[in-house]
Amino acid sequence: MSAPLAPVDAGFETRVRESFARQGLMRTLGAELVAVDPGRCEIRLPFSAGLSQQHGYFHAGATGAIADSAGGYAAYTLMAEGESVLSVEYKLNLLAPARGELLVARGRVLRSGRTLSVSQVEVFAVETGRETLCATMLQTLIRVPPRAGMTPG
Amino acid sequence: MSAPLAPVDAGFETRVRESFARQGLMRTLGAELVAVDPGRCEIRLPFSAGLSQQHGYFHAGATGAIADSAGGYAAYTLMAEGESVLSVEYKLNLLAPARGELLVARGRVLRSGRTLSVSQVEVFAVETGRETLCATMLQTLIRVPPRAGMTPG
Amino acid sequence: MSAPLAPVDAGFETRVRESFARQGLMRTLGAELVAVDPGRCEIRLPFSAGLSQQHGYFHAGATGAIADSAGGYAAYTLMAEGESVLSVEYKLNLLAPARGELLVARGRVLRSGRTLSVSQVEVFAVETGRETLCATMLQTLIRVPPRAGMTPG
Amino acid sequence: MSAPLAPVDAGFETRVRESFARQGLMRTLGAELVAVDPGRCEIRLPFSAGLSQQHGYFHAGATGAIADSAGGYAAYTLMAEGESVLSVEYKLNLLAPARGELLVARGRVLRSGRTLSVSQVEVFAVETGRETLCATMLQTLIRVPPRAGMTPG
Repeated sequence: MSAPLAPVDAGFETRVRESFARQGLMRTLGAELVAVDPGRCEIRLPFSAGLSQQHGYFHAGATGAIADSAGGYAAYTLMAEGESVLSVEYKLNLLAPARGELLVARGRVLRSGRTLSVSQVEVFAVETGRETLCATMLQTLIRVPPRAGMTPG
Repeated sequence: MSAPLAPVDAGFETRVRESFARQGLMRTLGAELVAVDPGRCEIRLPFSAGLSQQHGYFHAGATGAIADSAGGYAAYTLMAEGESVLSVEYKLNLLAPARGELLVARGRVLRSGRTLSVSQVEVFAVETGRETLCATMLQTLIRVPPRAGMTPG
Repeated sequence: MSAPLAPVDAGFETRVRESFARQGLMRTLGAELVAVDPGRCEIRLPFSAGLSQQHGYFHAGATGAIADSAGGYAAYTLMAEGESVLSVEYKLNLLAPARGELLVARGRVLRSGRTLSVSQVEVFAVETGRETLCATMLQTLIRVPPRAGMTPG
Repeated sequence: MSAPLAPVDAGFETRVRESFARQGLMRTLGAELVAVDPGRCEIRLPFSAGLSQQHGYFHAGATGAIADSAGGYAAYTLMAEGESVLSVEYKLNLLAPARGELLVARGRVLRSGRTLSVSQVEVFAVETGRETLCATMLQTLIRVPPRAGMTPG
C-alpha cells in the first residue's frame, strides 16, 4: 500500500491498550495484546478447552473475536485522541483447522479513511511451535468522533 | 425458498444438542441452545460484563460466535447421522449497537447441498424486552463424511 | 425489520432512474431497471452469450454487477436530493447455477443510517419461466453529501 | 504461505487461457488475460464509458467481475486436467475510487484444497501510469471433478 500510515496521535499505543483492557470478552477468552504499531496490532490466544468447537479445535467464533479486535485496533492506532472505532462488518475465511497451543492474529490497515478504514487480519495456529495460516479476515471499521458520555476507545 | 428442507435423519435434534454441548466456547460465553428445527436453529446469549467490547456493549466477536453456531447447526439439522459440519467462511454485518440484556441468533438454511450449505443468521439485541435486529450473517458450511477418529458433530 | 423506510425525497424514483441511466455498465450488460420502491429496487438481465462464464451460464461477475446496482439503488431511494450513494463492500454467495433466460435481482434495505446503509439482494435465475434463488448478496453503502463538481447519483 | 503451490498439470496455462476465452463476459467488458503462473493470475481491463457507474468511474460490478475471474483462474492453475473451477462466494472491499485508464486484478491462492480453494485478489486502478490499490477480494472456489457433458474449465 502506498497510503501513508503515520499515526496522528503519538499516544496511540496507550489508547489501544486502555481500550483493549476494557474489552471484557478478551479477558474472558484469555486473549493477550502482544504488539501495537502504527497500522498494526497483534493479539494472541492460548488454547483452553473453554474455547473449543465440537471437535476440540478453536471455535471459529474465538478466531473471529481476536481477529476482529486485532483489525479494529490496527485501525485505531491511526485515529486521533478522543475518537472511537467500531466494527462495521467483517468476513472470515477458515483456511485450516485452528488446532494447536496458540492462535496469533495479526491485523494491518489496508485503508485509513476519514470515515471508514479497512483492515486485513491473518490468524495463525501455532502447533508445537510451528505457525500455520488458519484464517484470514477482511474488515470494515468506522471512526466515531468524540461524543458526550462515551469513553473513547 | 423452494428447496426442500426435510431432515434425512429423524434424530437431528439430539445430534445438534450433543454437538452443541461439546462446544466449550458456548459454555464459556454462557450461550444456550433454545430451538432446533429442520433447517433452523436459535441460540441465546444473556449479557454479562465478560462479553463486552470497549464501550460496554456485546463484543462483535461474541455476536459472531453465536451466529456461527446458529447457522452451522441450522445446516447440521439437514445432514445425515455420522456426518459433521464445519464452517468454511462467514460474513457479519453489524447493523445496530448490540446493547441489552440478551442476544438472540436465529439461523436458517438458504441452501443445503451435497457438499456445501449456506445459512443466513439474524441476530437480535433484546433491550428491556424489545428486539432490534443488530447483526446479520451470511455463512458457508461444508459437510464432512464420517471419518475414523472424529466424533461426528 | 422495524426500521421505518419512508423516503425523505418524494422524487426518489426519478433520481434512481436518472442515475441508473448514467451507469454505462448496465447498458453494456443489457440490464433493465424494473421496479423502484422505498427501500427496494429490482433489476433484470436477459441472458446473452456475452454474459457467460466458461460453461455458458451467467458469469458471477454479471450476477454481482446487477446485485450491486439493485442493492445500491434500494439504499438510494431513502437518501435526500443532492446526495449520492457509493458501494463500500459486498459479499455474494452463489447458491445454484445462474442458468436460464433471465436473472432478476431484488434488493432491499436492512438498515438506512445517517452514514452507512446495508442492503440484502436476492438474485433469481429464471429458466423456462421458473424462478430459482441462485445468489444472495449482503452489501454496505455510504451516503455522500452534495459535492461541487459531482452529479448526484 | 507455507502451502506448496506447485501445479499438478504442466498444461495449466493452456487450460486457463482456453477457459478464459470461453468467458463471454470478459470479451464483452474488454478484459485481457495478462499473466498466468502457478497459483497466480493477472487480468487487465482498459476503461471505456461502457464500464462506468453513475459518476463515470469503473462500476464496482466490473471490478468484481475481473477480480472473480483472476482469483478463480489463480486457483485453477493448481487443479488437474479435466477438472473445472466454480466460484462459491466472494467479498469485495472498495478502497478507493476505481478511476483511471486501466484496472489490473492480481489474484493469488491462499489455500488450494482437495475440495475448496481460497484466493485473494488485489485490484489496482492505473491513472496516468500510477497504480493505486482500489479494491481487495477474498474468494472461495470449488473444484469440480470431470463430468459428462461439461467442458472442463
